[in-house]
Amino acid sequence: MKILIAPNAFKGSLTALEATRAIAEGFRKSKLPCELVEVPVADGGDGSLEVISEHLGATFFTVPVNNPVGDVIEARYGFIEKNKVAIIEMAEASGIRLIKKEQLNPWQLTSYGTGQLILNAIQRDAKNIYLTLGGSATVDGAIGLLDALGVVFINEHGTKMEGITMSKLHEVTHIEAQSAQPLLAKVKLTILSDVINPLLGDNGAASVFGPQKGLKEQAVAKMDEQLKHLARLVFEVNGEEIDRVEGGGAAGGIAATLFGLFGAEIISGGEQILTWSKFEEKLETADLVITAEGKIDEQTALGKGPGLVAFKAKKQGVPVIGICGSVSADQLEVENFDAIFPITHSPMELSQALAFTSQNIERTACQVGNLLSATGSSKKS
Amino acid sequence: MKILIAPNAFKGSLTALEATRAIAEGFRKSKLPCELVEVPVADGGDGSLEVISEHLGATFFTVPVNNPVGDVIEARYGFIEKNKVAIIEMAEASGIRLIKKEQLNPWQLTSYGTGQLILNAIQRDAKNIYLTLGGSATVDGAIGLLDALGVVFINEHGTKMEGITMSKLHEVTHIEAQSAQPLLAKVKLTILSDVINPLLGDNGAASVFGPQKGLKEQAVAKMDEQLKHLARLVFEVNGEEIDRVEGGGAAGGIAATLFGLFGAEIISGGEQILTWSKFEEKLETADLVITAEGKIDEQTALGKGPGLVAFKAKKQGVPVIGICGSVSADQLEVENFDAIFPITHSPMELSQALAFTSQNIERTACQVGNLLSATGSSKKS
Repeated sequence: MKILIAPNAFKGSLTALEATRAIAEGFRKSKLPCELVEVPVADGGDGSLEVISEHLGATFFTVPVNNPVGDVIEARYGFIEKNKVAIIEMAEASGIRLIKKEQLNPWQLTSYGTGQLILNAIQRDAKNIYLTLGGSATVDGAIGLLDALGVVFINEHGTKMEGITMSKLHEVTHIEAQSAQPLLAKVKLTILSDVINPLLGDNGAASVFGPQKGLKEQAVAKMDEQLKHLARLVFEVNGEEIDRVEGGGAAGGIAATLFGLFGAEIISGGEQILTWSKFEEKLETADLVITAEGKIDEQTALGKGPGLVAFKAKKQGVPVIGICGSVSADQLEVENFDAIFPITHSPMELSQALAFTSQNIERTACQVGNLLSATGSSKKS
Repeated sequence: MKILIAPNAFKGSLTALEATRAIAEGFRKSKLPCELVEVPVADGGDGSLEVISEHLGATFFTVPVNNPVGDVIEARYGFIEKNKVAIIEMAEASGIRLIKKEQLNPWQLTSYGTGQLILNAIQRDAKNIYLTLGGSATVDGAIGLLDALGVVFINEHGTKMEGITMSKLHEVTHIEAQSAQPLLAKVKLTILSDVINPLLGDNGAASVFGPQKGLKEQAVAKMDEQLKHLARLVFEVNGEEIDRVEGGGAAGGIAATLFGLFGAEIISGGEQILTWSKFEEKLETADLVITAEGKIDEQTALGKGPGLVAFKAKKQGVPVIGICGSVSADQLEVENFDAIFPITHSPMELSQALAFTSQNIERTACQVGNLLSATGSSKKS
């Protein structure tokens, strides 16, 4: 039996590579004779850098950057020398994982560090930059990132505004991108997004993602208004309407702004990463697919990593098993999944359970292997 | 596929019958075409009465009895009119489930109510009484039970001691069983035990079961000494040595005393209940066995309900799957089980998880069914 092991990361406990190894180890320790093909997956979310770098054979470079609150940290990005491709994960420089919960504040936090990573990749002569946006801490519509790239923000007095954040954006009357545009013109910038939300409105960056980044509910409309102001400023630079671009609302509006100012392409992170991993080719000879993620529910089926894996496997008629940290108690089925097994070995709080994630994934995979082994070989009917 | 569903109760949340129904419902909602045979099991532990009564078609009678702290409650026992068989579960009258944790006190608590149930069954002309001992709150060596049956406890002054408990046993110099013996001579008393511990010593009633019934560690030796005193008193009645009888330590020494005074037979509850359920006959045509219990671990393999089910199934070459509330995170295998799936759908405390037991069992069974369905029908190799 050939088993394709294609899990996402388990947020807050295991990377996709670690989850892959745990599942593989479980099957290896089971009684099922099987060949294992390891294909860690990601969808542009937190942890994508590691998965992509694994599939493309990228080398990591480390750069000092400003994190979302302005502290200098070391951030990585991946680079493939032979074809000058850079893989940048926004969360490495501007991620929610880098700061404390009480530091969350979309009016002050900045994507500046992500701009520094892009700048460094350009200086390394990157021709293609792939930017993954998941796990960001900011809702700044890329203004910090632009600042790092040399875009200038001017107020009504004609004064250049330093250290721009969303709390001051309303004072900006126009932006000057002349010094940044030639720099960006040398590279193709592609955004790997894990969401399709637009920049503005009820499904936009402020409404949908603001609250989880510390935006108070009563301030959502005000933030949406600021992002609309930014859209006008971008429109005045080169006539691009960025407010309706699919996926423009990703990472607090960064996707929309980079599309508008530099013609960045926004694509599905999940699809692209599966392509890089040669998933479909590997699927052709597989008898079973195992995917995994922290939580598997109806949302999973909507195009995120494991949902896409399950969709593609099902289309090929290959059985799909999901392994996860949690499901709903009454969720008997999720589209495209044949069976789903949560890993928790015993009732306990999440904070305790996290320490067992790897063991629990391994044990669950082992049980699935043993079940298939026992029922496949001793079936009477 | 013919599936034998043979779970134990999930202590504190579901009876064996409820667990059986939840598993069956899960398979029925799965995509696996299957025939389900429902065989709830028990091993003499808490909840055995319901399972035995189901298999033997017993009718319940309700009797007012004293619970372990002396409050009058209504307790059930099962009776089969046509062959005059009574099924008595000690926990119904003297169970730990009947009192608050802070009421636990082996020096004061009494098995009196179980004696009242036996007396009522004899008055109903029972010829065979099966007594299950699991889940008792007492470590009184049956003295309360004997009191209810008319056995008399006499002190050194020749005075009859009323309301005897372990706190006063040291004052007893001899016991008189003359009035109870003719009563008991009319019935065959069989004890269904779920343990093989003897009455005294390191593996005895006080050492092993005392602490979980509120006996302080430093009082274990003193309680053991009192049970030894009881053994001497019983020996003086009819020359039976009760201290080495296998299983005599069950339910705080009740088994040993009833063996010594009335010739009660002590047998394995698990074996007897499986016999009554015609388990082995049903197993002959089964393709898969599902068993279940709150916890499945190495202890499970040692002869308790699901362990015995797994042992017998394995001997017949039928695959066995265990479904349970909890396992050890690193427990990849348990003897005779092919695979084990814990049911918890998400990390949460036990007190919260208990509310989901039925749903979680159903969902887990459904996933196993779906997995077998998907891999059985679309296997490429």
